[in-house]
Amino acid sequence: MKIGIVGYGNLGKGVECAIKQNADCELAAVFTRRDPKTVNILTSGVPVVNVADMEQYKDKIDVLIICGGSATDLPKQTPEYAKMFNVIDSFDTHARIPEHFANVDKAAKECGHTALISCGWDPGMFSLNRLYANCILPNGKDYTFWGKGVSQGHSDAIRRIDGVKDGKQYTIPVESALTAVRNGENPELSTRQKHVRECFAVAEDGADLARIENEIKTMPNYFADYDTTVHFISEEELKANHSGIPHGGFVFRTGKTGWDNEYNNVIEYSLKLDSNPAFTSSVIVAYARAVYKMNAEGMTGCKTVFDVAPSYLSPLSADEIRAHLL
Amino acid sequence: MKIGIVGYGNLGKGVECAIKQNADCELAAVFTRRDPKTVNILTSGVPVVNVADMEQYKDKIDVLIICGGSATDLPKQTPEYAKMFNVIDSFDTHARIPEHFANVDKAAKECGHTALISCGWDPGMFSLNRLYANCILPNGKDYTFWGKGVSQGHSDAIRRIDGVKDGKQYTIPVESALTAVRNGENPELSTRQKHVRECFAVAEDGADLARIENEIKTMPNYFADYDTTVHFISEEELKANHSGIPHGGFVFRTGKTGWDNEYNNVIEYSLKLDSNPAFTSSVIVAYARAVYKMNAEGMTGCKTVFDVAPSYLSPLSADEIRAHLL
Repeated sequence: MKIGIVGYGNLGKGVECAIKQNADCELAAVFTRRDPKTVNILTSGVPVVNVADMEQYKDKIDVLIICGGSATDLPKQTPEYAKMFNVIDSFDTHARIPEHFANVDKAAKECGHTALISCGWDPGMFSLNRLYANCILPNGKDYTFWGKGVSQGHSDAIRRIDGVKDGKQYTIPVESALTAVRNGENPELSTRQKHVRECFAVAEDGADLARIENEIKTMPNYFADYDTTVHFISEEELKANHSGIPHGGFVFRTGKTGWDNEYNNVIEYSLKLDSNPAFTSSVIVAYARAVYKMNAEGMTGCKTVFDVAPSYLSPLSADEIRAHLL
Repeated sequence: MKIGIVGYGNLGKGVECAIKQNADCELAAVFTRRDPKTVNILTSGVPVVNVADMEQYKDKIDVLIICGGSATDLPKQTPEYAKMFNVIDSFDTHARIPEHFANVDKAAKECGHTALISCGWDPGMFSLNRLYANCILPNGKDYTFWGKGVSQGHSDAIRRIDGVKDGKQYTIPVESALTAVRNGENPELSTRQKHVRECFAVAEDGADLARIENEIKTMPNYFADYDTTVHFISEEELKANHSGIPHGGFVFRTGKTGWDNEYNNVIEYSLKLDSNPAFTSSVIVAYARAVYKMNAEGMTGCKTVFDVAPSYLSPLSADEIRAHLL
């Protein structure tokens, strides 16, 4: 399976690494909006190509993995590239998924391609676990917790404050809330009761630390509804201890079974990831295999993780899967 | 969706309860090998019918849920009933799955029916989680733990010992092993290091307790390879405190991502169930919906959970699922 990557940031690099781990996958080309000469990739012998020349690869790539941002890149790129290739993206603007799906579906169907949007772990594996658990326990309650992990959006928000040179924000689930859910107590949890936010900020020389701390803690939407702690640290310390992009989280469904709802059940799915983009990429590459197989079987148009039978993700045959994993 | 149940034991009763929780499902009939007059079901107005008269229901049932045992019932029943109905079973003899699959596939295909075998949580949801996690993290290690829960096979083994009136056995994961796996330590675990076995036995009057305890603890395959504790209790105590059938367990995959395998990842799925058969039945009823939809789309033959796109399990439309669960 020949894979192309568009966009060589954290996610694109993650996809390159994931391809290395899958013997049936081969990186065919990396496409970039930058001058290809300025982009150094890890895999030797693979061309880096400007996006303007993408069409030349129309018949040389089985699945194109689009590693752009959800705000402005993917809404344009995915429908456009679906005309040339089977494609997969990690579109994560929940409210705009129906619109994005419709656009990609139209483009893919017209050209006989298969597309898969919103792939990764949330949306992605977390969505899948919510769906499975909801179908199994119709009489129940969902809980999703994120972290401990770095939120890029909240880190950016800290960095935009006057007097802040750099910063990193960790989203952390409240341990007592996790325990209450796990024990089947079905708690009603406010925003503040579910997660805390821990910030590490590097201040500019002479900046007013009290003002910065206050601006962070009172920032609407981002921090005001949470218990937030702010640590001021040096640039060196930030680099040494906070340069990773770990993440993870928990999806629970608690629900009742039995004639009189007399039995409690807890379904829990959790992820603990040293690198968010590397794991997201690993999910995407598994689904790229599914896209490739589904296209070969004539299943065209736009799909999501909900539409993919699990066996399509595996390099093994149906017989092997049944014999070894069932 | 009209559902029939064959076999009205713990599992059949669980299916009846799960149907009550799903508004799009209706119990059409319960089939039994016993005299129907001796079988009292919970749902009013539903016929209890002898299996000999099953064929009369050929066109009155959308999916038949077969609630027999894996040892002798299902290998015969599932292929036989697949000739008359869309069927689903919970066949769990791992080694014989390929053979069972082939038999059911042949019968179902010949008659244009859809069958799904080995449904429940293990095999079932645990298998699915093993597959997903293996595809996402090809460079990794699997761990499955069962419990805390009642093992019927081990409870039966205790009861067969001379001088034992009744007994119950709990399989319990070793907490330190769970912690080591969860921490990404990738331990090599022996049978003894993964689970302990706790037995509650009711001895006959005057029985030699030391002999019974020794016979349990040294029983090959069942107990000899485990740290086993035996408690002798009264019949009343067994009934009061150990009459439930709780179960559950944990499926982990730990694995590496990154160009030089520099990132650790832990995927964990766990279940905590007050009633094993009630939960198994809830999984089966969700998959019965999938069997019904797949048959309507012409997807005939034998399937497993690996072959079912998650969206088929849901009573919601594809648009609703994308909008609310992705």
